[in-house]
Amino acid sequence: MTYCVGLYLRQGIVLLSDTRTNAGVDNISIFSKMQVEEVPGDRVLALATAGNLAITQAVWNRLQEGVWLHGRHHTLRSVPNMFQAAQLVGQAVRDVYRDDGPTLSAQGIGFDCSLLLGGQIAGGPPRLFLIYAAGNFIEATIDTPFLQIGEHKYGKPILDRVLRYDTPIPDGVKLVLVSMDSTLRSNLTVGMPIDLLVSRTDALAVGLRRRITEEDQYFRYVQENWSAALRDAYLRLPTPDWLS
Amino acid sequence: MTYCVGLYLRQGIVLLSDTRTNAGVDNISIFSKMQVEEVPGDRVLALATAGNLAITQAVWNRLQEGVWLHGRHHTLRSVPNMFQAAQLVGQAVRDVYRDDGPTLSAQGIGFDCSLLLGGQIAGGPPRLFLIYAAGNFIEATIDTPFLQIGEHKYGKPILDRVLRYDTPIPDGVKLVLVSMDSTLRSNLTVGMPIDLLVSRTDALAVGLRRRITEEDQYFRYVQENWSAALRDAYLRLPTPDWLS
Repeated sequence: MTYCVGLYLRQGIVLLSDTRTNAGVDNISIFSKMQVEEVPGDRVLALATAGNLAITQAVWNRLQEGVWLHGRHHTLRSVPNMFQAAQLVGQAVRDVYRDDGPTLSAQGIGFDCSLLLGGQIAGGPPRLFLIYAAGNFIEATIDTPFLQIGEHKYGKPILDRVLRYDTPIPDGVKLVLVSMDSTLRSNLTVGMPIDLLVSRTDALAVGLRRRITEEDQYFRYVQENWSAALRDAYLRLPTPDWLS
Repeated sequence: MTYCVGLYLRQGIVLLSDTRTNAGVDNISIFSKMQVEEVPGDRVLALATAGNLAITQAVWNRLQEGVWLHGRHHTLRSVPNMFQAAQLVGQAVRDVYRDDGPTLSAQGIGFDCSLLLGGQIAGGPPRLFLIYAAGNFIEATIDTPFLQIGEHKYGKPILDRVLRYDTPIPDGVKLVLVSMDSTLRSNLTVGMPIDLLVSRTDALAVGLRRRITEEDQYFRYVQENWSAALRDAYLRLPTPDWLS
């Protein structure tokens, strides 16, 4: 399994992904699930992936080689805007499905993949998309400024409750780390280290790309202190008057 | 869907269940998913159920009529201890499976049910069980003092982080309400009102049984203030030094 979350904030895009892959419970490995394309001054595009690793790596390799879209051969470095970038990723997914899908299906293996694509291309605003295994996609909006793929449930309540489009990037980073920590604690198939990317609005360059390991002092602080903060918060709730 | 959670605490058993049933997204009804048997001075047993309503109601009706266990005809009012109470519920599940399972299977409908059984019978300690659709079961322990059925993921992180066997009952009640609120916010198929039961250790009588509606002032306070408390807690986290 996997957990990836993307934020669509006024100040920019934040993407966080774990690195655990597993086949069953004992074939556990570390693979980055985040890929970045950067052309400083022109574009930053980040892709986070969940699902069958052979599928998601095939999608990324095809995007590197180029994919036919609207009669032209494009990569993420050549598409003119974010909408076409999302279409290109969707087309790469469909190309993999066309080639690998029938054999996977014959062997009883589902075509399991989903992807987050966030970033900005000069001339347009930052955008964040979730691309499905069918190659179609949805986009984050001001009303729902985050998208998740993989094991999303454990880390969703904190985002539902407090994340807003106007949340500043540093607070957004704290929130995705808390959301990831909630998931890491509850699901063994999501694992450290984690990859973080920040792309600030109109910077058109990677603002921060960081692999956070178990030795990261800040993440350890979050892990240790968030539980204590929740404990303090619930202890401050009054006892219901109907409970003697 | 459903969300039910049971706490196994030093001070006693707490059980909370929602009341929403749905067939698809538009056939939504309110059904209590919690049943209680009380013989003051002798026993309190509470059953919370998730899954196919026809199955879980059939299980409860059979438990009312009596089920054959170890060559004797028992109800939850006659079994001598909590282990046999869990066995009795499991046997009722198997009896329903024997009678209804083949037809359900022929129509492509899974045999979907799970149950929480908590309580105490004179002469033994309080115990909390989770009974599966196969009629087998697990029991909460001091190490893991809560069990959940139904849509459990959204409400699990708060319990993972702060609930302990030594958590006092009033704090346990706060925590299950927060856990339920997280689930209600994230999953439409879990809905108000909610049913709460408290059985204090060695009281051998229902300590509290309460239907909490949307008008319940305390629950509304929890709903409104927990988000604010989380917001305060994450704002108090320092900004990572690697994020300018």
